[in-house]
Amino acid sequence: MGKVYLVGAGPGAADLITVRGADLLKRADIVFYDALVQPEMLALAAAARHVAVGKRCSQISTDQRFINRNLVEAAAKYDIVVRLKGGDPMLFGRAQEEIEALETARVQYEIVPGVTAALAASAEIGVSLTQRGASRSVVFATPRVGEGEDVSDWAPAVAGADTAVLYMAVGKAPQIAAILEAHGMSVATPVVIVESASLSSSRHLGCTLRGLKNGAAGGLAGPALMLIGDVYRARAHALIAAELMSAEFPLQAAPHG
Amino acid sequence: MGKVYLVGAGPGAADLITVRGADLLKRADIVFYDALVQPEMLALAAAARHVAVGKRCSQISTDQRFINRNLVEAAAKYDIVVRLKGGDPMLFGRAQEEIEALETARVQYEIVPGVTAALAASAEIGVSLTQRGASRSVVFATPRVGEGEDVSDWAPAVAGADTAVLYMAVGKAPQIAAILEAHGMSVATPVVIVESASLSSSRHLGCTLRGLKNGAAGGLAGPALMLIGDVYRARAHALIAAELMSAEFPLQAAPHG
Repeated sequence: MGKVYLVGAGPGAADLITVRGADLLKRADIVFYDALVQPEMLALAAAARHVAVGKRCSQISTDQRFINRNLVEAAAKYDIVVRLKGGDPMLFGRAQEEIEALETARVQYEIVPGVTAALAASAEIGVSLTQRGASRSVVFATPRVGEGEDVSDWAPAVAGADTAVLYMAVGKAPQIAAILEAHGMSVATPVVIVESASLSSSRHLGCTLRGLKNGAAGGLAGPALMLIGDVYRARAHALIAAELMSAEFPLQAAPHG
Repeated sequence: MGKVYLVGAGPGAADLITVRGADLLKRADIVFYDALVQPEMLALAAAARHVAVGKRCSQISTDQRFINRNLVEAAAKYDIVVRLKGGDPMLFGRAQEEIEALETARVQYEIVPGVTAALAASAEIGVSLTQRGASRSVVFATPRVGEGEDVSDWAPAVAGADTAVLYMAVGKAPQIAAILEAHGMSVATPVVIVESASLSSSRHLGCTLRGLKNGAAGGLAGPALMLIGDVYRARAHALIAAELMSAEFPLQAAPHG
């Protein structure tokens, strides 16, 4: 029986995987990878079979039970099975379902953490999630919107933290902003949206909660994070100013280097 | 003028730094490093001058202004200056103060994200921070305790999130638990404490919020995280059961491999 490694690929750039993760890719016999994993990173696993199990929010994705079954079966055939997941496996990675399947089948496994997108986005815009005297708590959440009593159970934690990072949220930004306003958050709260953090295609957008409500996040296509809180005031302001100066490029290209 | 790289060292293990971070260490001319950075990681910077700027909570640490001045001066003398920070620079890393000093002095800089300790701790105990149907929000906080009106301003976000990770908190665990209870959190809420995540010396302790209040976290010496929430019920239970079976080793050694 082989061993299954649940490996965090990090935010996207091929050199933002950990050294341990990169070494495992080089030694892997088979790699099951998410839709967000970049070809440059997969190329590290030169000797391995590559199997796409395309998970991507709001697009066609492989059934989780099918992925679980594949991992268990691969461990019977191969020594080193890598399950490469965007970001970190333990934060919005649905790792628990794969862990439980592996434990039930008594397959050896190990989890290799990764850099979650919020940290790469913060590095890129140069604004720390925590700041002395300004931000001592940060919440990471995937908000739900729609009908039902406890559908906005995420909102008190987001409204209560000094800084919030919302994953898989831009597609429903207007509804999210309305819920946060209803939970007492000021419509003037600064927001920075980072699309495709750490990739050369990354873009940054500044707005306020009011702007979000009015559709400011419309038209984003790549995976994006919403960063919300007072620590983003200066950066959001600079991004909005840059946007006003440019009719042609409404989203400012990310500074690199 | 050289360039300053604020690099996340990750949770501790030398191979949990990113590939980009490791490459920078190999090319660095000088490295300023925190107290929590391990010798095995510093060894990657074989050609560089190593300067300890020992930051470690509740111990003697180098003044932040002294670090800022050193970074600016080093950029005038060296091409590649690495500021190596435990975990990720943008999460409890006080990076903002260094960024501002570098911007004021017009020194080029770049931030390289790292794996924050909470992700390594989660990988090690095999419990995902988020779980479908059980945890959609995670808060990371450094709680304050003591006198003063807004000293427990961190508590609503922690009590409101599905899962909470408290950094630099074990030393004041009883006060923190009392504050969380006052904010409506059940004393039966499961807690797992992970000390020295990702290192061979790592240890795990299971308890409840009531246990924390009664001193269950006393005697921990290394850097430790408090993981709080319903997702830890099974793991906390297993750790407590293991502790009850062993009078000699009250803290269970971490499973490795």
